[in-house]
Amino acid sequence: MEETLGELGEFGLIEAVTARLPQGPHVLLGPGDDAALLAAPDRRVVASTDLLVEGRHFRRDWSTGYEIGRKAAAANLADIAAMGARPTALLIGLAAPATLPVRWALDLADGLRDECEPVGASVIGGDVVGAEAITIAVTALGDLAGREPVTRSGARPGDVLALAGRVGWSAAGLALLTLASGGDLGEVAESPLIRAHLQPEPPYDAGPAAAAGGATAMIDVSDGLVQDLGHIAAGSGVAIDVDPAALELSPLLAAAARCGVDPYDWALAGGEDHALAATFPSTAGLPYGWRRIGGVLAGGGVTVTVAGQPYRRAGGWAHFSGDAPVP
Amino acid sequence: MEETLGELGEFGLIEAVTARLPQGPHVLLGPGDDAALLAAPDRRVVASTDLLVEGRHFRRDWSTGYEIGRKAAAANLADIAAMGARPTALLIGLAAPATLPVRWALDLADGLRDECEPVGASVIGGDVVGAEAITIAVTALGDLAGREPVTRSGARPGDVLALAGRVGWSAAGLALLTLASGGDLGEVAESPLIRAHLQPEPPYDAGPAAAAGGATAMIDVSDGLVQDLGHIAAGSGVAIDVDPAALELSPLLAAAARCGVDPYDWALAGGEDHALAATFPSTAGLPYGWRRIGGVLAGGGVTVTVAGQPYRRAGGWAHFSGDAPVP
Repeated sequence: MEETLGELGEFGLIEAVTARLPQGPHVLLGPGDDAALLAAPDRRVVASTDLLVEGRHFRRDWSTGYEIGRKAAAANLADIAAMGARPTALLIGLAAPATLPVRWALDLADGLRDECEPVGASVIGGDVVGAEAITIAVTALGDLAGREPVTRSGARPGDVLALAGRVGWSAAGLALLTLASGGDLGEVAESPLIRAHLQPEPPYDAGPAAAAGGATAMIDVSDGLVQDLGHIAAGSGVAIDVDPAALELSPLLAAAARCGVDPYDWALAGGEDHALAATFPSTAGLPYGWRRIGGVLAGGGVTVTVAGQPYRRAGGWAHFSGDAPVP
Repeated sequence: MEETLGELGEFGLIEAVTARLPQGPHVLLGPGDDAALLAAPDRRVVASTDLLVEGRHFRRDWSTGYEIGRKAAAANLADIAAMGARPTALLIGLAAPATLPVRWALDLADGLRDECEPVGASVIGGDVVGAEAITIAVTALGDLAGREPVTRSGARPGDVLALAGRVGWSAAGLALLTLASGGDLGEVAESPLIRAHLQPEPPYDAGPAAAAGGATAMIDVSDGLVQDLGHIAAGSGVAIDVDPAALELSPLLAAAARCGVDPYDWALAGGEDHALAATFPSTAGLPYGWRRIGGVLAGGGVTVTVAGQPYRRAGGWAHFSGDAPVP
């Protein structure tokens, strides 16, 4: 029998998890006290929070604890990058049943750690409580190093729309997982699309690079490209047109479209890849890692179009609706 | 029929909540973007996170959404104060069923806001997701204004043990609520002890005052005085003795003891009042709001004693055990 959280207890779990979490140079006081203390050399701190709920954001039969840790961290670190900042720290809340194997919680911590380390962030604090279902709360903090934050509201007509990272991969991977559900995943499990769904790879460096390169607006594509560009359009009072030819869809997406889906729907409406979308003055060259995918127009009428046309799918992830990506 | 979260939708709820949340002077960029931006004038930021789960930390038939908001904020703001810092911001994650009335979520936001405002903190960000049960994730941030953080590890033999705020009130209020459960609470509902359980009043100012006044160690009493002093004793390698006569129990506690409980057990083992306990050099006067309740001794043997004796109750709140304060 595997040891469970109920057997190890709250303080035992905290001790075991904390021992696995190295503390980076920003950490002045790590886990173990009433609160942690983090350096904020910029005199400002960027902060964002997200909740992940089992059955809605992840399934334990599809993802390991490690993968869920990576993905939970990635979603939040990408929010920090989307402001133009570098992530410095995560705080984690874990609500879980007493029957959960300790191993799963340690794997989760390892995944959080391994997603944080390459970007220089540390898990500096957390909380564990008993609950019926697993819920993971992640708060990410970051530092702008003197840069101005890139919000959703600075896009101007004439700006170039650009993308860093992948779109559609996670949605295609989810479709493959759903197709294979119930049976042995077999070689499908090795698909880079499924890997992309289980463990997204946000282009963290592209956020600060965009801020330094004069980006006028930026967003983390978490709910779907068209839907998230709608937030920039609304925030900036502009219209945005996506050039689908410029999306340069991976051949993998076309191959996976055997499940009867237009791969452009994955790219335009699929979430969870945590690409970054930003707008730049047309006079500026795009920073490394960014590619042009459209342009910014004067506002009025439909705010986001694809090749000049309204996009037919309502698209994107909606909480509290039946349109959850994980059944 | 009351409008529900499912009818209003994620973005409608965020808009309605955000409109109720004033942004204080520390907020450089409030809710509505990928992340918020908060001033950290000290070049350091204090950070802590907590999860509250329905049925374990609160009951909707005992507490209003407003009271739960106040209490959720209080628990986290007290953690910041216990480091010697002033709270500057909260980030909130709310997982809730689609059937939850919008009114309840707005009341929660009002409670969070009203607990934050007097201490100068703002709710700067959040997330809402669908889930079977209500879970509230709270992250608090704070500023030390140049003071050194007061940890759990600096207590020295000979130090004075001091307390700010109330102990035992919340546990007594919970006992009254449990006694009255099922029936109409009637006049019991007006008891200050029940009010203390539903809406604790942490002595926020006492934290920074203790730091400025030379406190050697400090902790937020969230799980029970003896249990939480155990963390200072362990962190500092000392023993701590509580003088029960110095606790100056309120006559209210004695009156409530008609349910057959020794009121000292509430004071020594009851959590959730979010008093602050700290140690001070014996040569220092105690800052305003603090009173002596014992002393620090050389380590070895039982780490926390009451009038020189081991305290008989194992005491305090334990997650993942059957000893949950809310059935």
